[in-house]
Amino acid sequence: MDKLEHIGIAVKNLEESNKVFAKLLGKAHYKIENVEEEGVRTSFFDVGGIKIELLEATRSDSPIAKFIEKRGEGLHHLAFATEQLDRKLAELSAEGFEPLSDKPKVGADNKMIGFIHPKTTNRVLIELCQEKK
Amino acid sequence: MDKLEHIGIAVKNLEESNKVFAKLLGKAHYKIENVEEEGVRTSFFDVGGIKIELLEATRSDSPIAKFIEKRGEGLHHLAFATEQLDRKLAELSAEGFEPLSDKPKVGADNKMIGFIHPKTTNRVLIELCQEKK
Repeated sequence: MDKLEHIGIAVKNLEESNKVFAKLLGKAHYKIENVEEEGVRTSFFDVGGIKIELLEATRSDSPIAKFIEKRGEGLHHLAFATEQLDRKLAELSAEGFEPLSDKPKVGADNKMIGFIHPKTTNRVLIELCQEKK
Repeated sequence: MDKLEHIGIAVKNLEESNKVFAKLLGKAHYKIENVEEEGVRTSFFDVGGIKIELLEATRSDSPIAKFIEKRGEGLHHLAFATEQLDRKLAELSAEGFEPLSDKPKVGADNKMIGFIHPKTTNRVLIELCQEKK
């Protein structure tokens, strides 16, 4: 992996958490975005070129709702940028990591994304993301 | 905060996890370090200037041992670099965040460090760190 693209944090209430992180980071979020397919509403903060993405569930079957139900709010995933998402997922799969889906999906922030199951990565959910052309 | 310095990940077995993350990130850790005071052994990976720090407990009363007992392995903290650790901790405290200790402590990687209690930051443990002079 060449670049950490963002860090995802699961929160219960995006408005409240936007205030908390604005105070903590000393700057406001620069955008809010819905990702219908994933059932999440996200906000983005920039800290020296690394994005912090807050994620709020918009439906009860959203992965974020399930995560919060199981583990509570907090650090959710690390996302790394790649220029070759399909190939990178296939490579990691061949090395024993377990992609969460066969095909990349639509993510926030104009990205195609794929996840690696945390059971093969010390319980750290890993996202790979590629800018959409 | 101006810069994300590193991401801390709690692991049970540093040797095993070093192999996993070397495979995932495509590069080996560049150092291992004990932090006696914190009861942890750490390894560091570099991904485009951001450090990933794996943390293994060296005693049963280590914060990492307690974290793993409670929540299992996984993402543990986000660390931000500052040039004025005391002042920054005091400022955040005045804004309603709760520092975990009164004074900065000795951390890994030639740093003085201070933590913010996760109960005021959506369950994300925040570290502030300053390079030792």
